[in-house]
Amino acid sequence: SFSRGMQTVTLIPGDGIGPEISSAVVKIFEAAKAPVCWEERNVTAIKGPGGRWMIPPDAKESMDRSKIGLKGPLKTPIAAGHPSMNLLLRKTFDLYANVRPCISIEGYKTPYTDVNLVTIRENTEGEYSGIEHVIVEGVVQSIKLITEDASRRIAEYAFEYARNNQRSSVTAVHKANIMRMSDGLFLRKCREVAETYKDIKFTEMYLDTVCLNMVQDPTQFDVLVMPNLYGDILSDLCAGLIGGLGVTPSGNIGANGVAIFESVHGTAPDIAGLDLANPTALLLSAVMMLRHMGHHEHATRIQTACFDTIRDKKVLTGDLGGSSKCSEFTADICHRIQDLD
Amino acid sequence: SFSRGMQTVTLIPGDGIGPEISSAVVKIFEAAKAPVCWEERNVTAIKGPGGRWMIPPDAKESMDRSKIGLKGPLKTPIAAGHPSMNLLLRKTFDLYANVRPCISIEGYKTPYTDVNLVTIRENTEGEYSGIEHVIVEGVVQSIKLITEDASRRIAEYAFEYARNNQRSSVTAVHKANIMRMSDGLFLRKCREVAETYKDIKFTEMYLDTVCLNMVQDPTQFDVLVMPNLYGDILSDLCAGLIGGLGVTPSGNIGANGVAIFESVHGTAPDIAGLDLANPTALLLSAVMMLRHMGHHEHATRIQTACFDTIRDKKVLTGDLGGSSKCSEFTADICHRIQDLD
Ligand SMILES: CC(C)[C@H](C(=O)O)[C@@H](O)C(=O)O
Ligand SMILES: CC(C)[C@H](C(=O)O)[C@@H](O)C(=O)O
Repeated sequence: SFSRGMQTVTLIPGDGIGPEISSAVVKIFEAAKAPVCWEERNVTAIKGPGGRWMIPPDAKESMDRSKIGLKGPLKTPIAAGHPSMNLLLRKTFDLYANVRPCISIEGYKTPYTDVNLVTIRENTEGEYSGIEHVIVEGVVQSIKLITEDASRRIAEYAFEYARNNQRSSVTAVHKANIMRMSDGLFLRKCREVAETYKDIKFTEMYLDTVCLNMVQDPTQFDVLVMPNLYGDILSDLCAGLIGGLGVTPSGNIGANGVAIFESVHGTAPDIAGLDLANPTALLLSAVMMLRHMGHHEHATRIQTACFDTIRDKKVLTGDLGGSSKCSEFTADICHRIQDLD
Repeated sequence: SFSRGMQTVTLIPGDGIGPEISSAVVKIFEAAKAPVCWEERNVTAIKGPGGRWMIPPDAKESMDRSKIGLKGPLKTPIAAGHPSMNLLLRKTFDLYANVRPCISIEGYKTPYTDVNLVTIRENTEGEYSGIEHVIVEGVVQSIKLITEDASRRIAEYAFEYARNNQRSSVTAVHKANIMRMSDGLFLRKCREVAETYKDIKFTEMYLDTVCLNMVQDPTQFDVLVMPNLYGDILSDLCAGLIGGLGVTPSGNIGANGVAIFESVHGTAPDIAGLDLANPTALLLSAVMMLRHMGHHEHATRIQTACFDTIRDKKVLTGDLGGSSKCSEFTADICHRIQDLD
């Protein structure tokens, strides 16, 4: 999948504002001469053999080849039994780690400064097992499933991530005081893996305590690793600390080198097509993708330009407090990249 | 349990700093001439018949009579299989609703102002069912149990609370997009109960979205109601917004009029006995208790004095940024109450 040193990436523009912010990213990548060539695919769930929801074969096939995807927001059709497209993608490609760096953006004011942490969420099991039962009328069970293999895998990912990204500590987030067996197993695997990464400090903390400490002083945290639902909660909480989903990147890492990077905000149908959307979350996700592919220089160049545009405050989209169009914001970033040349 | 218009309250001073902060509350109640007489009980778990952990019979008997308890922090002995004392108390007295008002304290600086919300947590089931299994080596299940009865009961409590406390909206917090049956049942009951409280606005929101919105703008929330674990997390998060567990009151409401009010911070063994502890959380819990008993005037008088002391900043304990003793902080509140007479 290389042509003239270019690596193919499957681009899933998505719904609503997805196409606009995707084309913003494509433009910025062009300006930065990033060695990526895009293979665009539409991802709308279809009903496969046996009535099971699946992603279209040509999208699956592209991802299987390219192994790397960049994806905008997808709407989940309101049809009975229709799965979340995000869940379907995680499942289809066994994307076991959701990684969200939350780093304060200079010039974009929130109640916090100097946030610099990464949440790493187990993405395949736990409270998302989908196993539920009615025991008797009015009594329902949901099953949280924790396995040794998935726990070890995510713990290993977290420590590798910490080591490869010059981070010094990993905190395991759990409620093993309540769910002694399931969170207990998760925690045990984290402890075991920690033993083999002596260069990284390991701590463990109850989820409730993490939430309390997080809003009081987020700067005390570095890398956090946790089961699925806790990651769902904490990653959104942390996104809130730095300005919300419009500026927070996300990556889903799978087995066999597959990875999908995505903005986690919605499709914003109210402003779709109006050239008003903010492409920052998707752009920073694309920057994560470049680093994942080993293109650190291109990643840094794009990220610097994006942060400069935001810090400068002259050309900002509405959600960032400005009144510029998506295309103007994009052009400003492109100019800065070209000026750096 | 009345003598000369006084109502008996079971006082469980607790461990560590518990006795100091409890005696601070007793002094302040005396200064306010609150119509309460205390029946002090020690609560250390003992092993009952069949080896089951239980609270001492004389504490149980006192609570059964008085129906109202005020409790300081309890340490959970480190013995295999020893339950958390908090969980044991919730279970023993079927304390089904945990109520935590989080209201910004003037003069105590945090990144947020004007927080004014209440978390109402289902306290008896959900992820705290304690039912767990090993399926095969390395695969573990924890069961989240949601019942129609407990869901309806907590929803009704939340709407009653809103109505009786001049609050205008109730938000049900859930992940029914993932746990469709269990959180689905919880949510359905909330919706049904909402139908019968037309004076209170009802909304529903995903837990992750609540966390994100909460740290961005907590003033949008009023009363929040949710299953057990979500309440554990959100109540601590919200406590963090207003300054932490040292200033956040908590009440546990049970069936048949039983209720225990408590500070939810730890026993702080490092400063125990040194007259350095901050009694605010226990005092504000005692204020909640007075309101629960219908003594609104006494409640308001004590609360006003406490907030005045904090706003004034002259006599503060160390954790509040001052250097006064617990006894000095207590005396300052007592003087203000007496000055109000
Ligand atoms: C859309 C939803 C199913 C999803 C989740 O709960 O995991 C979302 O909140 C996320 O974090 O990706
Ligand atoms: C001590 C612990 C068992 C408890 C819980 O998890 O419920 C605590 O965090 C709480 O909120 O009361």
